[in-house]
Amino acid sequence: MEFELTGQDADTRARSGRLRLRSGEVETPAFMPVGSRASVRGLTPGRLRECGVQMVLANAYHLALRPGAEVVAQLGGLHAFMGWDGPLLTDSGGYQVFSLAGHRVITEEGVQFRSPVDGREVFLGPRRCMEVQNLLGADVAMVLDHCSPYPCDREPAEAAAERTLRWSAACKEAHGRDDQALFGIVQGSTFDDLREASARRTVELGFDGYAIGGVSVGEEEHLRRRVVALTAPMLPADRPRYLMGVGFPPDVIAAIGDGVDLFDCVAPTRMGRNATAFTPGGRVRLRNSGLRADRRPVQDGCDCPCCRLYSRGYLNHLFRVGEMLGPILLSVHNLAFYARMMTQARRAIRQGRFGQFRDGFIARYDSGKEQ
Amino acid sequence: MEFELTGQDADTRARSGRLRLRSGEVETPAFMPVGSRASVRGLTPGRLRECGVQMVLANAYHLALRPGAEVVAQLGGLHAFMGWDGPLLTDSGGYQVFSLAGHRVITEEGVQFRSPVDGREVFLGPRRCMEVQNLLGADVAMVLDHCSPYPCDREPAEAAAERTLRWSAACKEAHGRDDQALFGIVQGSTFDDLREASARRTVELGFDGYAIGGVSVGEEEHLRRRVVALTAPMLPADRPRYLMGVGFPPDVIAAIGDGVDLFDCVAPTRMGRNATAFTPGGRVRLRNSGLRADRRPVQDGCDCPCCRLYSRGYLNHLFRVGEMLGPILLSVHNLAFYARMMTQARRAIRQGRFGQFRDGFIARYDSGKEQ
Repeated sequence: MEFELTGQDADTRARSGRLRLRSGEVETPAFMPVGSRASVRGLTPGRLRECGVQMVLANAYHLALRPGAEVVAQLGGLHAFMGWDGPLLTDSGGYQVFSLAGHRVITEEGVQFRSPVDGREVFLGPRRCMEVQNLLGADVAMVLDHCSPYPCDREPAEAAAERTLRWSAACKEAHGRDDQALFGIVQGSTFDDLREASARRTVELGFDGYAIGGVSVGEEEHLRRRVVALTAPMLPADRPRYLMGVGFPPDVIAAIGDGVDLFDCVAPTRMGRNATAFTPGGRVRLRNSGLRADRRPVQDGCDCPCCRLYSRGYLNHLFRVGEMLGPILLSVHNLAFYARMMTQARRAIRQGRFGQFRDGFIARYDSGKEQ
Repeated sequence: MEFELTGQDADTRARSGRLRLRSGEVETPAFMPVGSRASVRGLTPGRLRECGVQMVLANAYHLALRPGAEVVAQLGGLHAFMGWDGPLLTDSGGYQVFSLAGHRVITEEGVQFRSPVDGREVFLGPRRCMEVQNLLGADVAMVLDHCSPYPCDREPAEAAAERTLRWSAACKEAHGRDDQALFGIVQGSTFDDLREASARRTVELGFDGYAIGGVSVGEEEHLRRRVVALTAPMLPADRPRYLMGVGFPPDVIAAIGDGVDLFDCVAPTRMGRNATAFTPGGRVRLRNSGLRADRRPVQDGCDCPCCRLYSRGYLNHLFRVGEMLGPILLSVHNLAFYARMMTQARRAIRQGRFGQFRDGFIARYDSGKEQ
């Protein structure tokens, strides 16, 4: 993996870069749609390309449960399995083990839990987590982290951050593929000193890139922004910085200003499935009966495959009758919106005017909510 | 509308032709996927083209209920509304009124029924039915027919066929667009003499094309085949013949041998959504756990967008975890399978060897059920 900076904003910490991975290049800042179970819901890889998607996220936890990492490997690895030949990152499943799994036993070696799918006992520790991600074969693997819930007292937050550090070291040790990058994850909940220690010690361990984890877990926006603004600058400038699970457009734009390079979030696809479109002027709810005979596209001037061909009236109809083309088309628009937002951000950074772009973007977005 | 025959089989009644409609040409025999509510479930028009689809069916009944024919007209008509600029046919909704609608009052003027959507009272008679279809603006409209259920006694079957004739005359009278073809519909249930009388008198009324209705309503295969074999040859050789709601591959192939030119059926998309693929050797169930690590495509040698990129193992995974890409991809394969079946049939007809093709196709398909 190679990462080079191609631009640095004048007034903010925003930077643009180029991430070279086994399966291709990614212009950063970049947004990854979420395809936890080896599918970005309802969209083919060709459609993702049309939306301007450069890199996709899948999830080792979900794929280890079904169909199993060994099955994916038998079917040629994750790229071949899901038909996406571009850059691919697998999350380790730390977040899922600690938030989704029911009954579980946590030891130094890992977590034993009952599969929510079929009740069978599953074990996920640093070694198995790396084995799974090596078998899946994404371009980037993530260490197994212990993600604290929110709110979280200081003591358990510290314990989770410490465990994440030990597991990160074990993951680095167990990681077996030269052609797969490995990213560390900073934890520490909303405690500044824990974040600082976690960042410093994760960097000491040494990874190809660094993620800020433990955000987007229910905390208020100002806390999330503070954690990002504090943590991002502590990570090495010459390595990619990945903000996990963030977020809505203003959160993403704000974090770019703090020097974040990579993002993932279910928002564009989940909101799209729920009939909500992102536009520069805020959200548009396509179920709104006022749009029944609206000839305009979802977003004026948008050149995505949804807006080029369909009216808000048609989308309104699809959602009202429950046709699955509605969720598909609005996921397409939302992913194209995110990709365009990132393209605009990269351009603004290279031109040294990101601060102005950020403030204008957020003001316009927040002004027009629910058009 | 123009229709010219381009081939006639040597040993069967099968013929190939070219149907010229306002929005384009259709090589016949042709199969129309069903997009009742102005959407072939989960598939964009671009995807339909990739599958080899030439012409699409929508339903005036469904669209009159939601979003309303006037709304579709305001949004530019059905082609613009659904983004399909190719040939389009709207069924009248006769079948739906008599099979789906709940409480209803049938008079000579039409049917008053309670909308299954919102309980409001709706009226559909020949005049309104043509008004709706004129507003929708498909290339081909269908007369309002009274479709008998199966089984059906002779007396109600005769009454339904007689009403269909009177309504057909009224529809022809009310039809207001020169650029839209109008097809008549033959009824008569499974009674040979009723079918004969209905066909003769529908032809006397004079339509651009003729449909065989009242089949695929639960009757046994041999009855359906007898009705088609009896009725198709009574329809004018120089007009397109459309067998409504049929069917599974062997039914379609058999009916082509009787001289049918057009088909529609939910089978490829509905079966696809339910994890069942059509192949030359019969059906394949993609939920079958034996396919979990199967590297083969759904159908060996198939060049559809599903088979080119994905393994049976991946489809199996998608269906087992409930990802909507599974239903989408298998609908794609099934529509491509139907389109290829029709292409092969047209070629066999032009080469005068359709009888041989038909027998071989049906034998192979029936032999391998549930591979």
